[in-house]
Amino acid sequence: MTEQSFELYDTTLRDGTQQEGLVLSVEDKLAVARLLDGLGIGWIEGGWPGAVPKDTEFFRRAKSELILDNARLVAFGATRRAGVSVSVDPQVRALLAAETPVVTLVAKSHPAHVDRALRTTLAENLAMIGSTVRHLVRAGRTVFLDAEHYFDGHHANREYALAVVRTAAEAGASTVVLCDTNGGMLPEEIGAVVVDTLDLTGVPLGIHCHNDSGCAVANTMAAIDAGAIHAQGTAHGYGERCGNANLFTVAANLVLKRGREVIPLEKLRDLAATGRTIAEITGVPASPADPYTGSSAFTHKAGLHASALRVDPGLYQHTDPTLVGNTMRTLVSDMGGRSSVELKARELGYEVRAGSEAVARAAERIKEMESRGYSFETADASFELLLRDELAGGRANRPFEVEEWSVGVSRERGGGTRTEAQVRLRVDGVPLSATGTGNGPLNALDNALHSALDPFFPALARLVLVDYQVRLLSGQTGTDAAARVLISYRDGRERPSGGRSWSTVGVDTNTVTAGWRALLDAVHFVLLDQGTAVPATVT
Amino acid sequence: MTEQSFELYDTTLRDGTQQEGLVLSVEDKLAVARLLDGLGIGWIEGGWPGAVPKDTEFFRRAKSELILDNARLVAFGATRRAGVSVSVDPQVRALLAAETPVVTLVAKSHPAHVDRALRTTLAENLAMIGSTVRHLVRAGRTVFLDAEHYFDGHHANREYALAVVRTAAEAGASTVVLCDTNGGMLPEEIGAVVVDTLDLTGVPLGIHCHNDSGCAVANTMAAIDAGAIHAQGTAHGYGERCGNANLFTVAANLVLKRGREVIPLEKLRDLAATGRTIAEITGVPASPADPYTGSSAFTHKAGLHASALRVDPGLYQHTDPTLVGNTMRTLVSDMGGRSSVELKARELGYEVRAGSEAVARAAERIKEMESRGYSFETADASFELLLRDELAGGRANRPFEVEEWSVGVSRERGGGTRTEAQVRLRVDGVPLSATGTGNGPLNALDNALHSALDPFFPALARLVLVDYQVRLLSGQTGTDAAARVLISYRDGRERPSGGRSWSTVGVDTNTVTAGWRALLDAVHFVLLDQGTAVPATVT
Repeated sequence: MTEQSFELYDTTLRDGTQQEGLVLSVEDKLAVARLLDGLGIGWIEGGWPGAVPKDTEFFRRAKSELILDNARLVAFGATRRAGVSVSVDPQVRALLAAETPVVTLVAKSHPAHVDRALRTTLAENLAMIGSTVRHLVRAGRTVFLDAEHYFDGHHANREYALAVVRTAAEAGASTVVLCDTNGGMLPEEIGAVVVDTLDLTGVPLGIHCHNDSGCAVANTMAAIDAGAIHAQGTAHGYGERCGNANLFTVAANLVLKRGREVIPLEKLRDLAATGRTIAEITGVPASPADPYTGSSAFTHKAGLHASALRVDPGLYQHTDPTLVGNTMRTLVSDMGGRSSVELKARELGYEVRAGSEAVARAAERIKEMESRGYSFETADASFELLLRDELAGGRANRPFEVEEWSVGVSRERGGGTRTEAQVRLRVDGVPLSATGTGNGPLNALDNALHSALDPFFPALARLVLVDYQVRLLSGQTGTDAAARVLISYRDGRERPSGGRSWSTVGVDTNTVTAGWRALLDAVHFVLLDQGTAVPATVT
Repeated sequence: MTEQSFELYDTTLRDGTQQEGLVLSVEDKLAVARLLDGLGIGWIEGGWPGAVPKDTEFFRRAKSELILDNARLVAFGATRRAGVSVSVDPQVRALLAAETPVVTLVAKSHPAHVDRALRTTLAENLAMIGSTVRHLVRAGRTVFLDAEHYFDGHHANREYALAVVRTAAEAGASTVVLCDTNGGMLPEEIGAVVVDTLDLTGVPLGIHCHNDSGCAVANTMAAIDAGAIHAQGTAHGYGERCGNANLFTVAANLVLKRGREVIPLEKLRDLAATGRTIAEITGVPASPADPYTGSSAFTHKAGLHASALRVDPGLYQHTDPTLVGNTMRTLVSDMGGRSSVELKARELGYEVRAGSEAVARAAERIKEMESRGYSFETADASFELLLRDELAGGRANRPFEVEEWSVGVSRERGGGTRTEAQVRLRVDGVPLSATGTGNGPLNALDNALHSALDPFFPALARLVLVDYQVRLLSGQTGTDAAARVLISYRDGRERPSGGRSWSTVGVDTNTVTAGWRALLDAVHFVLLDQGTAVPATVT
């Protein structure tokens, strides 16, 4: 095996969805697969066709809708059932029907599991592995075998565990993936078993770890150091119980600390942003403390470190955050705020001077708004609006004014729900009113706004409200804010993934008003961005 | 050194507070110290007297208010300043004034840091270490030396790093703690440097790791395997950037996987509960996926696993959760099917037969509802309602009926937002209507429900809607659902952390209706749970 043959294998869409609270629609799965492909991950496991209806649907749609640049798509399944011919096993048929280039089969490698969970003999389990692998290889598939509970199995019955590896390889499996299914191993145990298995079988090995002893990443690294040439993991370490190995951490460790370019350096720079987008899709936030990609991963607090960081950021950072697309932050003073506004402004293409007064005012406003519950981290459009307003000396024109709005939702027994919104606006001083219906207050208000404004500003007509999140803030001290609403807009009604998109934020004691504020920011931003409104002057 | 001399060292109160968003009052610090002492941790570092005013106050109060059964309290500080006599150095005086039995001194062990951050000579740095350690030892203190950036330093200038260790030990330091300050090391590097340092100096060594490569726990274990006899870490791995080594994970790994009773087995059973209490005090939630202590650490979702778990929970768990005071849970999802419903039912205390028809019907209903966007994973109360309904043959009584409801939100220019809801219900056939206001549609509807029902069902009066989440589902295929709303209720209006809490779920094309469904489930659940409604019969 050459160095180049090493590739990363992502199982976010299968093992990652075992995470508590993580539920992905078929759309979500397609979107995550595209993002992982964009990072240069080698294999993407899409799910278990035939066992999970949503996954069957995923593979059906993937055939026409999922075009991968780097990755090969993998269908996951089990070996045939005991005592059944592989050619008639419905689950194996479903695997073939998924029409993926690669199939990963899970198989038992621990005698107690063969006996107690699978309820068959050790010999029949080997026969199941052999015949299923052969069947799929004959059908043109690359086959990986996930040897479940391999490390426990190797301790319990080393000869049987090795027989599983040999049987799979002899039947044509390209790689046998040793799984620490219960996640309780420590690195030196993993390393020793990988070395032993490699020495005695010579079979190309992979590694699949869980984090129950807090060592999933280290265990994965230990297996690779011991000779494994394939590493499985998930985005953010999503997964059952304590999660899987965090594939982002493994990837960055391999590239930056082992010099093994398992994903290209230029794609590594997308790591943090891709991680954020995936967390938005899953709805399960990643830990701010996640290595490399976390929002706190390069964040320093006041004290000993802050002064040294001014001398040289490398003194208190293990790597350069820009290599993984992350940024250093310091939580010291308003100086930190001002410089990050300055940085962000430049990032957005504004040429601001160091020490610019507009930037100082923007930083001050942001600080005040954040104390009331605002968060601009994922609301770039709201940030840019505020910045442009300050760059224009607080005199940025608003293309319309709101007089009043209202929305009503009602439901009668046995009937459906009616939602209707009214808005009264002024465009260039001319009063204007409109109504809109929708599947909730925000949607109805959005439709009413469109109905009023689209005739004046045709650019708005293409805008779609694609998502929103409501976060209750009542527990925060020093604020009477009830809710923060983040909304996402997309330009273009055609394709789910087409068109530019942007996010805005609103905060208010009333949840609907918070959403309304975010809506207004979104609409104002588009009008400003497209030059419909008077552009701000840059100082 | 004997096996018994190994002890754990907690730095939650100092290094842990570098975590973004973690701020502890003196009261909080005293409470956390007592909890850590209760676990049997050997040393508790309380802070940096003289440098942080709150920490000076903590040590002052600790003298009279903190009675520790197991642990010794540690004050943290730096070596004397360059060119200053140790006896007049104010920071060293503050360390002595803290009157702790133990002092931990941080010192530079990397030449570049001595030069660039400390701005002194390599010789003077050694002199600072020697004189400060001697001064504190003469004053009767046990002294530990934290050798900052030791691993990077050992790579950059091995002889100097070793000289730091020897200087500290010769001056009387009991243990020299090797720190991976930037957290970028991997286990084999840690192991090699610990072995080298131990071989060449013979000095008792400790280990202090950060998690920037995702290996803090594994690095700590590697150092211990290599001979370190003292391990530092924090509760939940709190700490700057990616956090410190999670001391709870290290402790459980050592006791359960290495047979080293670094905390007594009977105290290990308090680990999960102590972890929860500490997270409540810090206000920074621990990850549900945290090994051993996390709420998901022994939570299973997979159908594959669920059927095996029925046979023997040990098949998919690396250790017995009761050993660390945690519990096994199963999640109900489309992956689990009938076996996970059965398991969950038993977990909730229902005696259901294997192959029960009610369970089969419940599983069928759940599957159908999940295809419409429902998710029962975190909505235990909605699951239990559905289960009880099926156990009662679909005839569970509902204590009230809803006729109709409506809610309006309006805002005039310059004014505030008004939200008002109306509900019309029937209790025992008697019509009833009420109104409610609130800071959003769901809150107003909740208040209207309370206003109508509390007089009939006094148990409801104590219920508080504490949180809700809205997730848009419009991208899902095969469903016209627009939104899933999860809500959390708590029983008890008094304390934030007091009282039982439970969650319910609602799905509908209309976001407000989805929330209303979740509200109704919550209210029905309470009435059923408290025996106000006719209880279901168990088959």
